[in-house]
Amino acid sequence: MKNKIVENLKKIIGSDWVTNEFSQIQNYLTDETEALIRLHPEEDCILVKPSSPEEISSILKYANSILMPVVPRGGGTGVCGGAVPIKSSIILSLERLNKIIELDEKNLMITVEAGATLADLLESLNKQDNLFFPIHPGDEGAQIGGMVMENAGGTKAVKHGIMRNHVKSLEVVLPTGEIVTLGGKLIKNNMGYDLLHMMIGSEGTLGIITKVTLKLYAKSDYTGTLLVSFDNRRDACDSVPKILQEGITPLAVEYMDRPISKKAAEHLGTTWPADKGSVDLMFMLDGKTEDELYSSSEKIVEICEQHNAVDSIIAESSKEQKKLLDIRSNAYTPFKDHVADGLDMAVPPSSVPDFFDDITSLAEKYNTSIPAVGHIADGNIHNFILSVNGKLPSYYEEFKQEMYKIALKYGGTITAEHGTGKTRKKYMPLQFTKREIEIMKGIKKAFDPNGILNPGTIID
Amino acid sequence: MKNKIVENLKKIIGSDWVTNEFSQIQNYLTDETEALIRLHPEEDCILVKPSSPEEISSILKYANSILMPVVPRGGGTGVCGGAVPIKSSIILSLERLNKIIELDEKNLMITVEAGATLADLLESLNKQDNLFFPIHPGDEGAQIGGMVMENAGGTKAVKHGIMRNHVKSLEVVLPTGEIVTLGGKLIKNNMGYDLLHMMIGSEGTLGIITKVTLKLYAKSDYTGTLLVSFDNRRDACDSVPKILQEGITPLAVEYMDRPISKKAAEHLGTTWPADKGSVDLMFMLDGKTEDELYSSSEKIVEICEQHNAVDSIIAESSKEQKKLLDIRSNAYTPFKDHVADGLDMAVPPSSVPDFFDDITSLAEKYNTSIPAVGHIADGNIHNFILSVNGKLPSYYEEFKQEMYKIALKYGGTITAEHGTGKTRKKYMPLQFTKREIEIMKGIKKAFDPNGILNPGTIID
Repeated sequence: MKNKIVENLKKIIGSDWVTNEFSQIQNYLTDETEALIRLHPEEDCILVKPSSPEEISSILKYANSILMPVVPRGGGTGVCGGAVPIKSSIILSLERLNKIIELDEKNLMITVEAGATLADLLESLNKQDNLFFPIHPGDEGAQIGGMVMENAGGTKAVKHGIMRNHVKSLEVVLPTGEIVTLGGKLIKNNMGYDLLHMMIGSEGTLGIITKVTLKLYAKSDYTGTLLVSFDNRRDACDSVPKILQEGITPLAVEYMDRPISKKAAEHLGTTWPADKGSVDLMFMLDGKTEDELYSSSEKIVEICEQHNAVDSIIAESSKEQKKLLDIRSNAYTPFKDHVADGLDMAVPPSSVPDFFDDITSLAEKYNTSIPAVGHIADGNIHNFILSVNGKLPSYYEEFKQEMYKIALKYGGTITAEHGTGKTRKKYMPLQFTKREIEIMKGIKKAFDPNGILNPGTIID
Repeated sequence: MKNKIVENLKKIIGSDWVTNEFSQIQNYLTDETEALIRLHPEEDCILVKPSSPEEISSILKYANSILMPVVPRGGGTGVCGGAVPIKSSIILSLERLNKIIELDEKNLMITVEAGATLADLLESLNKQDNLFFPIHPGDEGAQIGGMVMENAGGTKAVKHGIMRNHVKSLEVVLPTGEIVTLGGKLIKNNMGYDLLHMMIGSEGTLGIITKVTLKLYAKSDYTGTLLVSFDNRRDACDSVPKILQEGITPLAVEYMDRPISKKAAEHLGTTWPADKGSVDLMFMLDGKTEDELYSSSEKIVEICEQHNAVDSIIAESSKEQKKLLDIRSNAYTPFKDHVADGLDMAVPPSSVPDFFDDITSLAEKYNTSIPAVGHIADGNIHNFILSVNGKLPSYYEEFKQEMYKIALKYGGTITAEHGTGKTRKKYMPLQFTKREIEIMKGIKKAFDPNGILNPGTIID
């Protein structure tokens, strides 16, 4: 049976682009979820690498005819198991649809094939030097289609929002094989129900994206990075809303526990520039003039000092800025091997200090610590559950669920930017009512009547 | 039968809040769609004015039990027939849910009941003087719930986007009666399918909104309005993308044909300040400093001059600014009685000049003129089909459809901000494939299995 399927798929897209040899498929079976909780499907899969929406359409029609699951796959950089097949499936890699189609300077938009990586997109923008795309989930190997499907966030959501705010148009192959274009190069569009927004964040369960048009910005002439140190978390947290109320909107506001930043700096063979205090806020700022940048920085420092900041350092040269960002990007690297799970909750920004207090108390109850970094102005904190002797701690499940309940108590969410995928699906009933989940199932059915696309993701 | 229903509804929400007397219902039967194409249901309806989500839930459960349509109604300021009942229905007015619940300065958010008007919201913000909400569909009698349901736009989308970009959380009574909260005071939220975004712009067909949390901004200290005149449309249009590419993002960029602005000024007993040229762009600008405002204005004038601008006038005093805005807001008033239909198409911003040329040629073919005002940086142009001897012209339907096809040819949309409602529903197949419409029907069914909520809107 399986050989027959392989033969039929080869007829559709050519024999070079279909394989069921494990050695070639291996790298397509997992994602970047922490090793201890990563999914490892053992069942046989078939890997296909189509080159066009038409080929994808044919594959989906065929898959419907034999009711075989199809799992679309981008860069595999996700952290929720969204791209990991759970049953014997056709793994559909978008890697051959990797072209930058058009840089449209007039409309400040870029159109790319879904399999183009973030690195490809940024490289194409760098050639122009006047345009800017803010969304960066940390790994530039992420494919743009995957970033849409996971509604990627990252550090710069404070000023520019998330992937959802930048997707103007999608070419999508529907699960039933039709090729459609959702949205357009439009700022406003109110015709019909908004299928474009339904597709964003749907994790490959409602269609396969083949082309993406994204909004860009004119690049700012000046950027700076400001590091402000505090003696305690609450003071750091409380200063952030005051800054936003003043009309200062940094690109990013990052929170870091000092032990984490020191260790990350050491790991990179450098030193963390702050020594007073025990926690830091890192503000990334931009401006049209140097004056604008200075006046924002001064105002931020003034407000932080009113909240008992103990030190501040400004990095202006691109080298100094890069050093700080590299450390922040590597916050996680030194203790990666000791992390059982990296959580991704968000709460209303003003609730972050209370959320932190509750989480700390909870960690004490379990006799562990719970290091944190976070996009603090977004209320999005990444807490790390540590492993015990290289293993998932015995209290892992219970501890994690208690943390989720704390986030939900503050009106928060279990996942802010990493996605539901397969690893968080079972916690859906913590955040949603039965009726909401029923509606989601109805939506899935409307797009994918046979349930062939990425089964086991978000809902069953 | 009808008396029985009235009695049962009175049991649910009290006899003061249910009526089937035509004199009391009359004002709830239409909206602000142009008189010549406005819908006027003749069938009997029952008007209910519940005061809580719980009462709305009971009404919906009852309506499901007798399969009677329910049409939710906000301020009635819509222009697509979205709130107009087409069958003998329960008209459910949100007017008693009109409280401003919380102004949350820490999170820069405001929570209101759905029946609070835009005027109520702005009044509550004015008391604070430091916070700003940008979405303004022209009529402050619009209720906030209605603005969410119609995904309202308006002039200030250039900098701040549309209603969709500001809705953080909704309390919704689902068609089947369950009360749910979608979203939260969150910047990022990736758990499950995004039912919040599905609800925005769904025109009262997927649920009844009872509470809304919206994003606010710190108010800018300085604002200015700049008027730039050109001899022709194309020059005016072409200057706009150049300005945005320079990193200058005005609050609004409005396009006006000179005869329209002159007539609107006369109507208000004043004069339009520009006399050179034949078309004008109006830029609304804000800034944190006076310098920032000046430097943006100078740069805009410089770019416009490179595109053959013939004059520019800056209004700085709030009185001068208000005068210009009043004229723009009344652009439509003097010839309202001669308008058969006000269209609401949008195209990619860079396609506006070609779109204008095509529309002008088309109007010549029909031996008529087609005045226009528009949110030009959004590519959203309001074209007016004029009446002939006070009646709908004989070519109305054909002319309109040809215009729609021009917008769609440029990758545009039939409605940018006014909504599909009941008046544009029949043009859905022009913009969407059969499969897309089927999926929309499936989504409707997932939310509203008995199809009781606002039938005949968007889809059948």
